[in-house]
Amino acid sequence: MRIIAYEEDGARALGVMAGDSTFVRVAGTSLRELLEQPDGIERIRAAAAGKPAGGRLDAVALRPLIDRPNAIWALALNFKRHIEETGLTTSHEFPHLFLRTAASLVGAGEPLACPLTSVARVFDYEGELGVVIGKRGRYIPVQNALDYVAGFTIFNEGSVREYQSHNRNFGLGKNFGRSGSYGPWLMTRDEFGAIGDRTVTTRINGVTRQHSQLDDMLFTVDQVVAYLSQGYELEPGDLIAMGTPGALPPSPDPRLPEERWEQLGRHKIPGVVHMRPGDVVEVEVSGLGILRNPVQ
Amino acid sequence: MRIIAYEEDGARALGVMAGDSTFVRVAGTSLRELLEQPDGIERIRAAAAGKPAGGRLDAVALRPLIDRPNAIWALALNFKRHIEETGLTTSHEFPHLFLRTAASLVGAGEPLACPLTSVARVFDYEGELGVVIGKRGRYIPVQNALDYVAGFTIFNEGSVREYQSHNRNFGLGKNFGRSGSYGPWLMTRDEFGAIGDRTVTTRINGVTRQHSQLDDMLFTVDQVVAYLSQGYELEPGDLIAMGTPGALPPSPDPRLPEERWEQLGRHKIPGVVHMRPGDVVEVEVSGLGILRNPVQ
Repeated sequence: MRIIAYEEDGARALGVMAGDSTFVRVAGTSLRELLEQPDGIERIRAAAAGKPAGGRLDAVALRPLIDRPNAIWALALNFKRHIEETGLTTSHEFPHLFLRTAASLVGAGEPLACPLTSVARVFDYEGELGVVIGKRGRYIPVQNALDYVAGFTIFNEGSVREYQSHNRNFGLGKNFGRSGSYGPWLMTRDEFGAIGDRTVTTRINGVTRQHSQLDDMLFTVDQVVAYLSQGYELEPGDLIAMGTPGALPPSPDPRLPEERWEQLGRHKIPGVVHMRPGDVVEVEVSGLGILRNPVQ
Repeated sequence: MRIIAYEEDGARALGVMAGDSTFVRVAGTSLRELLEQPDGIERIRAAAAGKPAGGRLDAVALRPLIDRPNAIWALALNFKRHIEETGLTTSHEFPHLFLRTAASLVGAGEPLACPLTSVARVFDYEGELGVVIGKRGRYIPVQNALDYVAGFTIFNEGSVREYQSHNRNFGLGKNFGRSGSYGPWLMTRDEFGAIGDRTVTTRINGVTRQHSQLDDMLFTVDQVVAYLSQGYELEPGDLIAMGTPGALPPSPDPRLPEERWEQLGRHKIPGVVHMRPGDVVEVEVSGLGILRNPVQ
């Protein structure tokens, strides 16, 4: 099952995808509140079963799945190849986590806001698998941790590098307004299947910039869920962006002007280009879908 | 004017203090939503004016002022004496910011949750001035920045040091469930007056552990507000904890058992003691009030 949050006539609504382009409207406006109910996912499934697919995806605006989540966690340096390319060190004992605000993220299709050039110039994509927590839990053993996951989504964990490096904590650099996105839907865990078999791919203007199998993670989803639950009672609607893989080696986009291509290589990472107004950025998780956003 | 958020019969409510122990009930349940209205503070003032003070502070449970804020920022290493005692370095050009979740904070009077000793042992107070944003703003010049502040409150920015040091980003170490607090009220800016003239004092079980004038900050409130507004449109109800001052030199509490007193000195900071179940922690900002929490 794939669940969407969308806006129609100025109001939030929820739907369950029926195919690639149509969906069934379900009652309620807050996925977070539905997940708070016991067996929230099964209630949504039952509400959509047998109903006509009256909604068209291209006729509505998708919105972030969770309204005002308690926590939007993201992992730094969680793909082995990305750790190598940055030359940075991170704990191999504990996942490296930081927080994002709701205001820093838009839904699928909504424009990402490139910072003014007078403020910052290095605005980077980070394609990632996203995890949506489905029920409350504290002190969760690793072996049960996936039971607390409602399902998966896709993140573009957009980052403003100059601000990210102002101090040891990433702070504002990971929290520019509308600098990242997630969506297009929550795919339930049963439908998503084995995480490590999937791939994440990031494309700018159709050129592939990142591509990795999801078995390259230093800390897996169950390990991160268990770790976080040592500190607080996980809440339905809490989100976790699982970290970004490395960049691909350079493969210049012939449509790009040469002066832009030469701007590659911050952190001396071959293959990295930055997001600019007019770009279209796609993050695909195989079998899940594509998160697509224009950059404004 | 001092505004409180409280719970009565299981529902959230708002009040305006009329003296030290009584308050006037005002309409509405969400201070965040009231602040979203133009001149929100003035509307609350008008709503309370001339009304009888029918509420008694000792008859209600205070709650966190803002329900589901977009952002709860906190500053690391923002008091010069604290920077010296930790021996850590921080940017002197950009404020050092990180985020906390709503679930990590309780209101005045509510118990703080000391971690299980099997999870962590170093649970520290951090007494701080808190800032409540009162209106939306982006690209705010420093000289106008205080116009975007609705008022001030008090934070105990409670920290679990083992987890805070797992990686460069503080992550979970600043976000244990119910590990910190803020309150007891928002004091409006006009009533609070000049920030640098005030002091912040932290006491555990009546023994003073921190005491500093608020003119020792590396980055002032207006500078931090202006900095954050470079990155996103500040929202009413956004919170900023302005960083903690240094510890006072050791002054043992004769009521404490000696073995506990000898546990001082993590980071080699003389005067630091940790919070333990049974403690009562108070943070006072002079002229504003006292934030008091038992530790459970």
